[in-house]
Amino acid sequence: MYKTALFPGSFDPFTIGHESIVNRALPLFDKIIIAIGYNTTKDGYFPLDKRLEWIKTVFGEEKKVEVTSFKGLTVDFCREKGAGYILRGLRTSADFEYERAVAQMNRVMLPDIESVFMLTLPDHTHITSTIVREIIRLGGDADAFLPENLRNKIKVI
Amino acid sequence: MYKTALFPGSFDPFTIGHESIVNRALPLFDKIIIAIGYNTTKDGYFPLDKRLEWIKTVFGEEKKVEVTSFKGLTVDFCREKGAGYILRGLRTSADFEYERAVAQMNRVMLPDIESVFMLTLPDHTHITSTIVREIIRLGGDADAFLPENLRNKIKVI
Amino acid sequence: MYKTALFPGSFDPFTIGHESIVNRALPLFDKIIIAIGYNTTKDGYFPLDKRLEWIKTVFGEEKKVEVTSFKGLTVDFCREKGAGYILRGLRTSADFEYERAVAQMNRVMLPDIESVFMLTLPDHTHITSTIVREIIRLGGDADAFLPENLRNKIKVI
Amino acid sequence: MYKTALFPGSFDPFTIGHESIVNRALPLFDKIIIAIGYNTTKDGYFPLDKRLEWIKTVFGEEKKVEVTSFKGLTVDFCREKGAGYILRGLRTSADFEYERAVAQMNRVMLPDIESVFMLTLPDHTHITSTIVREIIRLGGDADAFLPENLRNKIKVI
Amino acid sequence: MYKTALFPGSFDPFTIGHESIVNRALPLFDKIIIAIGYNTTKDGYFPLDKRLEWIKTVFGEEKKVEVTSFKGLTVDFCREKGAGYILRGLRTSADFEYERAVAQMNRVMLPDIESVFMLTLPDHTHITSTIVREIIRLGGDADAFLPENLRNKIKVI
Amino acid sequence: MYKTALFPGSFDPFTIGHESIVNRALPLFDKIIIAIGYNTTKDGYFPLDKRLEWIKTVFGEEKKVEVTSFKGLTVDFCREKGAGYILRGLRTSADFEYERAVAQMNRVMLPDIESVFMLTLPDHTHITSTIVREIIRLGGDADAFLPENLRNKIKVI
Repeated sequence: MYKTALFPGSFDPFTIGHESIVNRALPLFDKIIIAIGYNTTKDGYFPLDKRLEWIKTVFGEEKKVEVTSFKGLTVDFCREKGAGYILRGLRTSADFEYERAVAQMNRVMLPDIESVFMLTLPDHTHITSTIVREIIRLGGDADAFLPENLRNKIKVI
Repeated sequence: MYKTALFPGSFDPFTIGHESIVNRALPLFDKIIIAIGYNTTKDGYFPLDKRLEWIKTVFGEEKKVEVTSFKGLTVDFCREKGAGYILRGLRTSADFEYERAVAQMNRVMLPDIESVFMLTLPDHTHITSTIVREIIRLGGDADAFLPENLRNKIKVI
Repeated sequence: MYKTALFPGSFDPFTIGHESIVNRALPLFDKIIIAIGYNTTKDGYFPLDKRLEWIKTVFGEEKKVEVTSFKGLTVDFCREKGAGYILRGLRTSADFEYERAVAQMNRVMLPDIESVFMLTLPDHTHITSTIVREIIRLGGDADAFLPENLRNKIKVI
Repeated sequence: MYKTALFPGSFDPFTIGHESIVNRALPLFDKIIIAIGYNTTKDGYFPLDKRLEWIKTVFGEEKKVEVTSFKGLTVDFCREKGAGYILRGLRTSADFEYERAVAQMNRVMLPDIESVFMLTLPDHTHITSTIVREIIRLGGDADAFLPENLRNKIKVI
Repeated sequence: MYKTALFPGSFDPFTIGHESIVNRALPLFDKIIIAIGYNTTKDGYFPLDKRLEWIKTVFGEEKKVEVTSFKGLTVDFCREKGAGYILRGLRTSADFEYERAVAQMNRVMLPDIESVFMLTLPDHTHITSTIVREIIRLGGDADAFLPENLRNKIKVI
Repeated sequence: MYKTALFPGSFDPFTIGHESIVNRALPLFDKIIIAIGYNTTKDGYFPLDKRLEWIKTVFGEEKKVEVTSFKGLTVDFCREKGAGYILRGLRTSADFEYERAVAQMNRVMLPDIESVFMLTLPDHTHITSTIVREIIRLGGDADAFLPENLRNKIKVI
């Protein structure tokens, strides 16, 4: 059976932690769709098209990775894409509580969907898009927290 | 002694989890006042009058339940209403930390007040108003997370 | 309706934190049964009869409090005693996770039972029987953590 | 690539929560090895051969499931069996902290190994082998927490 | 070696909990710089100059305390000030997860910096600037949560 | 003022995580006493004299470090040694809850004592003596989790 996983997020920006989760999950699935959920009322800090472009830069050659965006519910997009799995990275126990609530709600709305979790590496545990964004916004150098291909590319706006 | 409990919240919207807490706490008190705390500077997503109306629909016949709203501090409203207890539902350990801080602050301001906690049912543990609201806003069907009387009634606005 | 709550524990020993929970819960119930669950294979540190005697000393005059012990499941003892509520104190989020698991298991075995939680006071949050016992065992003075009536009474054995 | 996952535990006893994790993870792997780690100095409550027999009863017909036991380190057994994944169920945030520590230690010792986590269902979140064992030991009826095939089979010893 | 610690925060407002952390940390350092991090896009509730003035009022005579504000990254300000330590108070485990992420990010950006944590007193564990601010905003009396020198001074704006 | 910190633990065995905490805390204190608390009824896995010897090997040349053992309460040993600080490493939020309880109890018994916490490095967050001990006991290679001077020295017993 063809196994597709959705890796949803706002990726504002995509970090070295996200990259590692996708790379380590790739052998487990036939396809991973990295999908930026967005809505018209609440923008991210970086523009949607930039965020998509950056992720494409990271996984340029990788055939099993698709990069896209969606409006609406994650479960509806899974249905549309035929994705049977939602992939998520877990950093801390605070993450876990939130991820559990979302996963259980998703399961009620789409019982076929299964959420699969992998751990961030120890060196990535402290890296959140929120803090990385704040560093960039304050003029700091966040390259250590970004995928290699994106270093020197993501700047304060 | 007449025992009145305040069940404060923003109830934006009132979920099946809230309904269950009130129903299971009813035998313990002579009266439960479900009270929407609001302030003029920070609106909720659903209008205050709608939120009140929905809760009244849920407990229509129940004499021991009063539904109302208040401005200002919860402890001041307890004093005004003669409520000796604050009733709260606990879902997760993240909830707990926040609820504990609020309860201890309330106790310093009004030493007579006692916070009483009940657990959400396992099937309701993942249900938060925030996620339910998000589902409705994104056009999803949130009926599974709403009290029976409110299904088909709460729509995106 | 007559409202009986069971306050189960090993109370090895009964601390100032336990005392406070019972005293603050008393107005909410018609009777509180403080019940030491024990089994023949795993003894406590202090002998069962001493632990019972100490709790009786604390609540000597209080008609609404009964002090006893039981073997077997807590829910079976609730049924035997006609207790509709299980009273528990919550100290920390670590407590909470464990208490939630136990409460949900109890509810599956006895759906009528309702677990009711109250918070320990800020000054009692750090007091656990385990640490108090360890202090006594190491020859320290644990009086600050014991009910007033028990000070100078509980010694290393 | 052939994907084998190890599902290690003491399964003392195997619960309905464990069963659900395995069943939901099966489509993701070519084989799942349910493996009871044991050592000669610390016995479980139920005998090892009984625990193995019970799990075999649960998955009798399922070709993709192997049931076995091992001494020594989990990573060494993974190497021996050619398992590239360790499968674990997550119940609560307390679980999570412990699972994370173990997974990170395993990764240091065997960098190829990837730990994959799935969530217990909401109705299973409170079910731990420890509490189930305690219920059985105290003479209670734990059938609601056991796989259907094991009901009436696991008794106090 | 001269030991300088930075105590960064928004202190909106400075509470009795913050005051206690600084006073208890003073013997450990030669100088503590209490520094309000601010940025032009996100204002606090109380004006920056008021917040600075209030903290100066609290530590008026204390030679080892400097009160100031900064824009940009905390680590850059540490470098500028020659501070080798970042001092933080820990209240709850929720605090801890966030503080750990920030501290680890800081260490990557400035490896020489060491974060040092002290616990809030039990009576201060529930006091957060957020809740204190909310009390003041709703017209309540927050004096019990403020340093003695600031009582009657901080009012709703 | 001469600043002495006690770093108490069972250190069964002393890990690379412990070593890092001591080294990073050294500049903050005039002396750090690494002290193994033991009691006659509950032995550790490794013999006390071995554990002491190993720690001495790690800090051989360091004049500011003293390695010793003690019976009884930590606060009594602080008093005896004139230590005004208890130094502790924090790994996870589970750690934190326990450490907070112990620290608050210590403060009640010896108000002058101040507990100071430092974070384990990200790469050490998952390292606990319990898991390291288990690895050694099961015949695994735990050298990656031990101070450099102790590699090849700590074996299963």
